[in-house]
Amino acid sequence: MRLIEELANRHRQSELALPIWFENGTLKLLDQLKLPFEEEIQSIASIEELAEAIRSMMIRGSGAIGLCGAYGVYLAAYESKGDVEKIRQAGDLLKSTRPTAVNLMKTVDEMVATAESTQGDVEALEQKAVEIIERQLEFEYQLGKYGAELIEDGDTIMTHCHSGALGGAGYGGRALSVIRAAHEQGKNIHVFTCETRPYLQGARITAYELKKFGIPHTLITDNMSGFCMSTGKIDKIVVGSDRVSANGDLANKVGTYMHALAAKENGIPFYTATSSHTIDFNTPSGDAIEVEMRNADEVTKIKGVRIAPEGTNALYPSFDITPNKLISGIITETGVITAPFEQNLNRLNKKVNV
Amino acid sequence: MRLIEELANRHRQSELALPIWFENGTLKLLDQLKLPFEEEIQSIASIEELAEAIRSMMIRGSGAIGLCGAYGVYLAAYESKGDVEKIRQAGDLLKSTRPTAVNLMKTVDEMVATAESTQGDVEALEQKAVEIIERQLEFEYQLGKYGAELIEDGDTIMTHCHSGALGGAGYGGRALSVIRAAHEQGKNIHVFTCETRPYLQGARITAYELKKFGIPHTLITDNMSGFCMSTGKIDKIVVGSDRVSANGDLANKVGTYMHALAAKENGIPFYTATSSHTIDFNTPSGDAIEVEMRNADEVTKIKGVRIAPEGTNALYPSFDITPNKLISGIITETGVITAPFEQNLNRLNKKVNV
Repeated sequence: MRLIEELANRHRQSELALPIWFENGTLKLLDQLKLPFEEEIQSIASIEELAEAIRSMMIRGSGAIGLCGAYGVYLAAYESKGDVEKIRQAGDLLKSTRPTAVNLMKTVDEMVATAESTQGDVEALEQKAVEIIERQLEFEYQLGKYGAELIEDGDTIMTHCHSGALGGAGYGGRALSVIRAAHEQGKNIHVFTCETRPYLQGARITAYELKKFGIPHTLITDNMSGFCMSTGKIDKIVVGSDRVSANGDLANKVGTYMHALAAKENGIPFYTATSSHTIDFNTPSGDAIEVEMRNADEVTKIKGVRIAPEGTNALYPSFDITPNKLISGIITETGVITAPFEQNLNRLNKKVNV
Repeated sequence: MRLIEELANRHRQSELALPIWFENGTLKLLDQLKLPFEEEIQSIASIEELAEAIRSMMIRGSGAIGLCGAYGVYLAAYESKGDVEKIRQAGDLLKSTRPTAVNLMKTVDEMVATAESTQGDVEALEQKAVEIIERQLEFEYQLGKYGAELIEDGDTIMTHCHSGALGGAGYGGRALSVIRAAHEQGKNIHVFTCETRPYLQGARITAYELKKFGIPHTLITDNMSGFCMSTGKIDKIVVGSDRVSANGDLANKVGTYMHALAAKENGIPFYTATSSHTIDFNTPSGDAIEVEMRNADEVTKIKGVRIAPEGTNALYPSFDITPNKLISGIITETGVITAPFEQNLNRLNKKVNV
C-alpha cells in the first residue's frame, strides 16, 4: 500500500485534482455529484461500493473510470491477500458497470493478467496499478504539450461539457490538459465554458476545475456561443470526445456540433482532444455511430426542479456527431492530426499498432 | 366598460389565451412569472400597478405590452372620468416602463390623441381601445394565415423562446400564430420547443401554450436542435423577432443564430414571423443593432438555484443577430417576404407608408 499512497501524496502536492486515490489504507474519491457546492470525499470500503460509485456517476469520465480498474482490482487483491479468483470476480464486477468504457476494460484486463501471471502477488499488482496511473498522467502531460502549441498568448478558448482533470488522472484529462498546459506555459488565456444542458457539467465541474487551477473563465449558456464567436470573443475551441471514427467524425456531448458549425462560419479553429488509443478504426464514419437516448427527465427538470408543464414530452440525445469537415485538428498524445483525416488517422493507426 | 368586457368575454369563448382583459369592472392579467406551474390571475387596481406589472415581466411580449397601452389609458380615463391631464400622465408612465417598445408607444399615442381630440370622452376611448385590440388580433389571424401556407401536413416545426399568444393579443402572437393556424387548418403537425436558456421561456410559456391549444410538442434543450435537424426530426423552423433590419438581418433571443446555422447546413427552411410595422428601416443591417447585455445572474442560477461555483463570472447577451443569408422568409401580416430581402422589404416599406 506504501507505493500507491506515496504516489497520491506526491500528486496532490503537485496540484493535481485527483478523482480517486488511496489514503491511510482506504480508497477515497471526490464525490462529483456534489460539485461544485460541496467538496465531499467518500471512503470506498469494498469493490461493491466502488462499482456503485461508478454506476451513480459519483466518479465519471473515461480516464477516471479507467483508473478505477487499476485501483479497484488492487483493492480486491489487497483485501483478499492475492486470491486470484476473487481478483477476477472484482474485475468482472467493475467491467459490468460500464460495458462500453474502453479504458476501464483495458486497465482491468491488465490488472487481472498481472494477477494471473504472478499468482496474485499483491506487490506486483500495486506496481502495475502505479504504472497504469503514471502512464495515464504521462498521457495527459503529452496531450497538453502538443495541444498547447496551438494556443497563443492572449487567446480566449471555448470548451463544452467537462473534459478535465476529474474525468482523467488529475492533470487536465483531455481538453483541460491543453488549456492547463497553455496556462502553465505562462500564456495569458481566458476560457469560456458552456454550461452544457441538461446535466450542466460545464457550469458545475469545468468551472470548478478552472477556478481550482486559477485559470480566468466566463460561463455562458450553450446557445450563446454563436453570439460570442460572431462578436470576436472567442479565438479557439477545444472539446473532448466520446468517440472519434476512422474518418475523424466526432461524437461528443450534445451541442458540440452546433458550436462547430458556428466556429466554421466564423473562421475559428475547432479542435478535439482525444487519445490515439480510443480512435475507433472499426467505425468508418459518424453515420455508423448510434446516439444513445437518455432519460428525458433531465430536460424537463434542472437539479430536480421542474421547468416545464406537468406531462411535457422531451428528448435527450446524449451526444451529437460533428463531421470531420468542421474539425481543424485532432489533438492526441502523439501529436496533432489534421486533414485529410481518414488518411492521416490511418497512418496513426498503423504506428500505434506496430 | 360594457363594450370592452364583452370583447374579452367573446375572445375567451373563442379559446384565445388572453394576456390582459377587463372583468366586472376590474383590469385582470395572467401572471406570466408564475407559469406554467400556477395560472394565477392578478387584479390591477391602478395605472401604477399596471406599470409595475410590465416592469416585473408579469406581462411581457411586444404585442401584449402594446395592449397594455390601450387597456391602461382606458383605465385612467375611466377612473378619472375623462381628465385629459391625468390620461396624459398615465400614458407617460406606461411609456416609461419600456422606452424601446414600439407597439406600446404607438398604442399609448393613439389613445392619448383620442383623449385630446374628444376632450376625454370615456366612451370614445373605450371604442378606440376595442379597435386597437381587434386590430392586433386581426394582425395575428392574417400573419397566421400567410405563415400556415408554408406548413405542410405532417411537418415538425421547431421554435425558440416564446413568440406566442400571451406575448400578443391571445391568438398566437407571432410564431405561434403560424403554428396555430396550421393546426386549425387540420394539418397534422408536431412542434419542437427549445427551452431557451437562461430564462426558459420555451420550456415554461411556449410549452404551456402548446398544451393549452392541444398541439403535440416535444421539449429539447437549445443545444439539441443541431442533432434533431441532422437526424431528420425537424422540417421547418419558425421563430419570432425582436427586430428586423432593412436588409432582413434578424435580432432575436440568443440562440436563434445557432439554430439558423444548423438549419442552413441541413437544408431546413428557417422563417421569422414579424409585423410589417416593426421592420426597422432606419437600421440598415444587423451590424448596426446593439445587443443589450443583461444581468448574468440568470446564467449562474436557474430559477434561483445556483448551478456554478460561487463567484463564477458569466455573460448574458439578451439576443443575437441572424444574417439574412440564413433566412428563408419573413412572414408578415401582408404576406411572406423572400430574398432579395433588401429590395423586397423596401417595396413593403413603400407600400406600408403610402
